[in-house]
Amino acid sequence: MSHDPLAAYPDSMREEIARVRRVVADLHAELPRYELVVWTAGNVSQRVRHPEVADGSADVLVIKPSGVSYEDLTPEAMVVCTLDGELIEGTRAPSSDTAAHAYTYQHMPEVGGVVHTHSTYATAWAARGEEIPCVLTMMADEFGGPIPVGPFAIIGDDSIGRGIVETLSTSRSPAVLMQNHGPFTIGRDARAAVKAAVMCEEVARTVHVCRQLGDPLPIGQRHIDSLYDRYQNVYGQK
Amino acid sequence: MSHDPLAAYPDSMREEIARVRRVVADLHAELPRYELVVWTAGNVSQRVRHPEVADGSADVLVIKPSGVSYEDLTPEAMVVCTLDGELIEGTRAPSSDTAAHAYTYQHMPEVGGVVHTHSTYATAWAARGEEIPCVLTMMADEFGGPIPVGPFAIIGDDSIGRGIVETLSTSRSPAVLMQNHGPFTIGRDARAAVKAAVMCEEVARTVHVCRQLGDPLPIGQRHIDSLYDRYQNVYGQK
Amino acid sequence: MSHDPLAAYPDSMREEIARVRRVVADLHAELPRYELVVWTAGNVSQRVRHPEVADGSADVLVIKPSGVSYEDLTPEAMVVCTLDGELIEGTRAPSSDTAAHAYTYQHMPEVGGVVHTHSTYATAWAARGEEIPCVLTMMADEFGGPIPVGPFAIIGDDSIGRGIVETLSTSRSPAVLMQNHGPFTIGRDARAAVKAAVMCEEVARTVHVCRQLGDPLPIGQRHIDSLYDRYQNVYGQK
Amino acid sequence: MSHDPLAAYPDSMREEIARVRRVVADLHAELPRYELVVWTAGNVSQRVRHPEVADGSADVLVIKPSGVSYEDLTPEAMVVCTLDGELIEGTRAPSSDTAAHAYTYQHMPEVGGVVHTHSTYATAWAARGEEIPCVLTMMADEFGGPIPVGPFAIIGDDSIGRGIVETLSTSRSPAVLMQNHGPFTIGRDARAAVKAAVMCEEVARTVHVCRQLGDPLPIGQRHIDSLYDRYQNVYGQK
Repeated sequence: MSHDPLAAYPDSMREEIARVRRVVADLHAELPRYELVVWTAGNVSQRVRHPEVADGSADVLVIKPSGVSYEDLTPEAMVVCTLDGELIEGTRAPSSDTAAHAYTYQHMPEVGGVVHTHSTYATAWAARGEEIPCVLTMMADEFGGPIPVGPFAIIGDDSIGRGIVETLSTSRSPAVLMQNHGPFTIGRDARAAVKAAVMCEEVARTVHVCRQLGDPLPIGQRHIDSLYDRYQNVYGQK
Repeated sequence: MSHDPLAAYPDSMREEIARVRRVVADLHAELPRYELVVWTAGNVSQRVRHPEVADGSADVLVIKPSGVSYEDLTPEAMVVCTLDGELIEGTRAPSSDTAAHAYTYQHMPEVGGVVHTHSTYATAWAARGEEIPCVLTMMADEFGGPIPVGPFAIIGDDSIGRGIVETLSTSRSPAVLMQNHGPFTIGRDARAAVKAAVMCEEVARTVHVCRQLGDPLPIGQRHIDSLYDRYQNVYGQK
Repeated sequence: MSHDPLAAYPDSMREEIARVRRVVADLHAELPRYELVVWTAGNVSQRVRHPEVADGSADVLVIKPSGVSYEDLTPEAMVVCTLDGELIEGTRAPSSDTAAHAYTYQHMPEVGGVVHTHSTYATAWAARGEEIPCVLTMMADEFGGPIPVGPFAIIGDDSIGRGIVETLSTSRSPAVLMQNHGPFTIGRDARAAVKAAVMCEEVARTVHVCRQLGDPLPIGQRHIDSLYDRYQNVYGQK
Repeated sequence: MSHDPLAAYPDSMREEIARVRRVVADLHAELPRYELVVWTAGNVSQRVRHPEVADGSADVLVIKPSGVSYEDLTPEAMVVCTLDGELIEGTRAPSSDTAAHAYTYQHMPEVGGVVHTHSTYATAWAARGEEIPCVLTMMADEFGGPIPVGPFAIIGDDSIGRGIVETLSTSRSPAVLMQNHGPFTIGRDARAAVKAAVMCEEVARTVHVCRQLGDPLPIGQRHIDSLYDRYQNVYGQK
């Protein structure tokens, strides 16, 4: 009856989009739960790969709509966009940060999930334009070094996306603090990017608290390398 | 049987008052949820316009009663007052801040909602009498510049209301930090004023945390203007 | 069948004790809710007056047992003690702070409720032995001036109780910060003392946050007096 | 039918292991509840003593699996390991901190429970390599003195376990802050170790907040001794 906006995509991809709508909707609930967002701020997206177009140009992303309360973020409310940021399925306008997510997927083919928040401590480092030094073993595990600062960029063109990609391409960190703005995090899927957002705020807070009463003790680079290597390769369930 | 205290108002206005009682009762639950208030502090009101008296002089406001627990704030518990602050419907005394809300509605005809809290970080800036500088993109979005400080004023006459109106009339910010007291916020309706109260505390906290370890990087005025303009006109659902 | 330990008290007093067991059990739930306590720390008590012994010497107090989890604090779990701190009803040992509560009731006949916590910010001021200056209108309302510091005293004799009574007898504040220890608060009943404990932590936190970035602006004594007088006499429902 | 990996252990020990699986699973829920952990960080273990091998060499420990969400930590998900850290029952890899727990049980026979977190304030002290001074009566009660710092050590050999044991063997404190890493706590069982982890973060936060605005007043050693002695011997229910 009604026109199916995803008719041009293979069946397996349409099923995957339906599954990812649920995944992305559920993951949005983690942001207020970990107190990373207030009101309607923040957003999570996941890439769905086109099974027949290997260069990624036909991939899509699933993201939350703009300005909608966290309680109303059901799977049906999510919207689907091309990697040019064009809305292809959904009744609402996509998040105003969609262009930054899309640019990241376009230029970082290994990235499957992107998260953006204004979490308090990470945003405070971003407002000073100061990277978070790697002085905690859990930070070495997860970030493999400092969490870097990206350039000042405002919404409206590619500059936020470019800032994210340029900063993360030269860092082991899955998180970048966009100056005066807040953190963006990436991962192999949306869940990994949410984890990076949670850990980013956690280390931003802990190093902040540490620094309030003095200087943290540094961790040697070979220890950072060793912790990062183990955590990326051994930690968790196989 | 019993005298209806709203008998003098048109039917459509009485229906709107009933609806707004529910809206205002529900919005009060957002204040403890976002940890903006403790015990019985804080209050939310919304204006109901008289459909036949264009100058606003017959408008009323719906507000919470004084000194009542947040759990007991049902729609029935709300009280209705004239813009002179006189109780016209309700079995309890109106909030002790009613005069400040009423004064704001009287003198700012575009305002449809007012919120007052003692939220921690905003009140801390207020106790130093220091405006919050606009150093976050989310702050440029929502407030269009610094959050200003209003004069020291105590309850008992028009001075709180006058301080709110004089400060907000010369600012793009929907929030004012009344000195040694706490924030008042306004909006086109109570929901917008609650959002401004939530965002006010969020930016008060983030800029505070930033400043604890150094100076924030400024955002240029033309960037602030551009962010504010976009957010007020483009963000959210149409 | 079993001996009733309250057999010597008038019926009306026994009924009141049963009612106060519920009140005190319910009020304990407010302490973790407002994050004033962790684990089994903190305690709330209420006095039950003997209707026939006017000098208060036959009054009793209802308090929580020692070292019991907040989830297990049912009305039945509460214990009843004389104002000499002797257990008269209950199967568990009374809170280890019972002597301090009892001493306060003995020496301040107008006090009907006592609360003790180790809430973070109030305890931090107590550890510096520094009173909290009255720089917020909500503090003038509730405390009528600074929140004073009591002497260093340790458990085992009357010294905590004496420190509370001596400090509060010469202050309008219903809260005292016992040095290196934490706040004790009083009220006409346990609910009022819990409210004072909640407000004490709130102002301790807000003034702390204010002071982190500079000095608060003072409030003149006549304004403090005026706010205190209004709040104690006008605020809330009659 | 299927091989029982615990077949070599006495029946009473197998029953105790089943019971401890529930205890340890339930106690893990306390860590996010008290905001000591985010995501999958942190772990709780309890020793189960072999009833027939007095030297402890046949004891086992029950601990959480590696990298599993707190919501999924059912009794069945827990894993059982020897004190050499070898997995003997469970379908998932044990926590990556199992070696440190096992080393502690091997070398501190009186210890029945171990907890590890990255709780914010305790970890901040650890990142400066600074012990927490004993300036609160609740700290004297629970820790009997300062909370000491352990050496910098990274995962992969015995060095974390050795650092824990060497530091705690010469202290009354049941908590050690491992440098740049976070707190480990011990107790006669897992519940006591969880309590120590909760109290460790509480005093780390309170003393931090105190120090932000000045120096805490010291507590004399004889008062610390007296408080510690009373609390360890008198507090709580017999």
